[in-house]
Amino acid sequence: MNDTFDLQRRQVLLGSAGAVASASLFGFSPLSLAAEMPLPDYVNWKNPAALIVHSANTLETRREAIGTSIVTSNEQLFVRNNLPAPDAAIVADPDAWTVAFQGVKNPRSMTLGELKNLGVETVASVLQCSGNGRGFFAHKPSGTPWTVGAAGCVLWSGVPVSAVVDALGGIDAGLEYMTGTGGEALPDGLDPKSVMVERSVPLKALEHALLAWELNGEPLPLAHGGPLRLVVPGYYGVNNIKYVKQVAFTAAQSDAKIQTTGYRVSPVGQKGTMDQPSLWEMPVKSWITQPLQQVKAGRVLIQGVAFGGARAVQGVEVSLDAGKNWQQARFVGPDLGPFAWRPFVLIAELQPGRYTLASRAIDVQGAMQPEERLDNDSGYGHNGWQDHAVNLVVV
Amino acid sequence: MNDTFDLQRRQVLLGSAGAVASASLFGFSPLSLAAEMPLPDYVNWKNPAALIVHSANTLETRREAIGTSIVTSNEQLFVRNNLPAPDAAIVADPDAWTVAFQGVKNPRSMTLGELKNLGVETVASVLQCSGNGRGFFAHKPSGTPWTVGAAGCVLWSGVPVSAVVDALGGIDAGLEYMTGTGGEALPDGLDPKSVMVERSVPLKALEHALLAWELNGEPLPLAHGGPLRLVVPGYYGVNNIKYVKQVAFTAAQSDAKIQTTGYRVSPVGQKGTMDQPSLWEMPVKSWITQPLQQVKAGRVLIQGVAFGGARAVQGVEVSLDAGKNWQQARFVGPDLGPFAWRPFVLIAELQPGRYTLASRAIDVQGAMQPEERLDNDSGYGHNGWQDHAVNLVVV
Repeated sequence: MNDTFDLQRRQVLLGSAGAVASASLFGFSPLSLAAEMPLPDYVNWKNPAALIVHSANTLETRREAIGTSIVTSNEQLFVRNNLPAPDAAIVADPDAWTVAFQGVKNPRSMTLGELKNLGVETVASVLQCSGNGRGFFAHKPSGTPWTVGAAGCVLWSGVPVSAVVDALGGIDAGLEYMTGTGGEALPDGLDPKSVMVERSVPLKALEHALLAWELNGEPLPLAHGGPLRLVVPGYYGVNNIKYVKQVAFTAAQSDAKIQTTGYRVSPVGQKGTMDQPSLWEMPVKSWITQPLQQVKAGRVLIQGVAFGGARAVQGVEVSLDAGKNWQQARFVGPDLGPFAWRPFVLIAELQPGRYTLASRAIDVQGAMQPEERLDNDSGYGHNGWQDHAVNLVVV
Repeated sequence: MNDTFDLQRRQVLLGSAGAVASASLFGFSPLSLAAEMPLPDYVNWKNPAALIVHSANTLETRREAIGTSIVTSNEQLFVRNNLPAPDAAIVADPDAWTVAFQGVKNPRSMTLGELKNLGVETVASVLQCSGNGRGFFAHKPSGTPWTVGAAGCVLWSGVPVSAVVDALGGIDAGLEYMTGTGGEALPDGLDPKSVMVERSVPLKALEHALLAWELNGEPLPLAHGGPLRLVVPGYYGVNNIKYVKQVAFTAAQSDAKIQTTGYRVSPVGQKGTMDQPSLWEMPVKSWITQPLQQVKAGRVLIQGVAFGGARAVQGVEVSLDAGKNWQQARFVGPDLGPFAWRPFVLIAELQPGRYTLASRAIDVQGAMQPEERLDNDSGYGHNGWQDHAVNLVVV
């Protein structure tokens, strides 16, 4: 893939009026690039029409494919792997998968078969890549230029980590983090710490964490971390360790690069350091999913999704004029709990003309989406409403 | 498919100790027949491992494939078509699909594109074939011998029918039924009334009815009635008209055979008549989904699903001894509303031996699943808990 193509694609993916104009200049429609890259083999069961293939390890759900029905289907869910997925053999006999527990009174390994008899719970939560929205940053950070579709709302089923901890005698004294390690094969010739997927989250995350073997009612697919994934509701995707092979309660954060200098909110031009914020809890966010480009004048349903991240979402407003005026939107469908997103709708009577549709959500503690993005070197954690706005032509 | 095969399959599908014994006698495992029949073309995107293919128009979800995560994925959802599906061209341009409205002040046809601007709601509901459980009837009724898997819990999104009625000036006076007509092509040479799919439900069903274009967050697939289906939450599947081309408010029930003599609860050996109960509202029901055959002694999670049908489910009990003693089970995960099912779990310490696991649910009005099935000619509406019990060997 050459740089020119990358640049075009980035502009197309922005989904704004600017992007549409760029797309027209380049002579293709924003939807026509889908066929450029086929689905990689390990996700060939996904819906190609709903996905943008950035690379073999990065697939984005199209903004217009995000539906109203709350759950994001496995076939439409985005994929972001830090390393290539392990061999599919690991999901052929899921109950034989083992995971080691450390930092508990009785540390040991358990098979997934054993874990399944400890208990079961289901949590609906938004899974979102830390870099979702990176495509909107003006300084063009390195990394996948996601716009809105490195996110989905899914149902996870598995055993609460707290139930496993109880079965192992409780957590040792003085430990402050829950550290999960992924089961990826590491590339030869590199320092393992520089590539391994090992993330630490504050111990309080234990309260809602699951070891999940089911995604939306089906056995957890390899592409999403099957046979077993550490799910930390309300936290960015990177903390949800795929093919988890160890859960350790630790005094310090992992010394893997992905924890120490990776996934940190650092000033533009500066590398991450341990004293900068880690991509842990997600803040409140929302975006419009339709209409996106052009509609006929008259009664128009403006739809989108809103979530609170680590806290429940309280409400969401929609603006038709780039944020000058706001109207309360209505949530649609059942509430799946504090970590789920809620589809919303606002019905508007629109005359012909140009509109800039924006949405801003507020969480139950009163935190509201900011207007502007917080610029940072890697383009992480974007929840500013302005960049997520949609320029709409009503004819 | 010959009769011998049919007989064997019926026994295998029963999922009881008798079935397992029969299966062993015939020299195959209950799971090994899956590969016998491939998925029909129009549902080749479904998960073959999760489905039993009874015929091109009847596919059942395997009991062991029903997951914990509340929703049944599109890929695992059962299929039952009264007639072959229309040409797939009708889902290629969904917004052009038209549906006629009758029995309202301003009757007219509307396109799906128009309907989408009237409003949107999402309802989680159990979709269940009237004949689910038919395989348990001793008199071997004609029709597909479903055991438990002609059912799923899904999320429907679309416009409330009541919003469409409001837009059309309201319902004419004196009408008592909502009558939906399917868009299937009717076979030549037969009286249309003898084959058409047209069902009437009492007008009160309007309260929760949707015209749905989305299933579990994706555009409604052809196999499930796309581009537009009349969804009547709490009512048996047959009332949820696929490819709906007309919604009429009527003084009398439809004179189509599927309404007049079909889908009636009639005594064994007697054809249906208009004065017998129609398969409308579903009653309370539950079944165990795991374990199904054999487990190791020790701590065992007994899981299943329970729903109230037309009313919310209040609770569910599990018996380990064929109904002599009962224990309250716990619901797992978020409550998606009165028409959804709720996965449940009971943790038991089981010693080696033989157990008969049963479940019985109770709805919010106090109606409880009966022990026995109500015998009827076509094997409809089975919610007796005894036949749904599982014979388990603990080793």
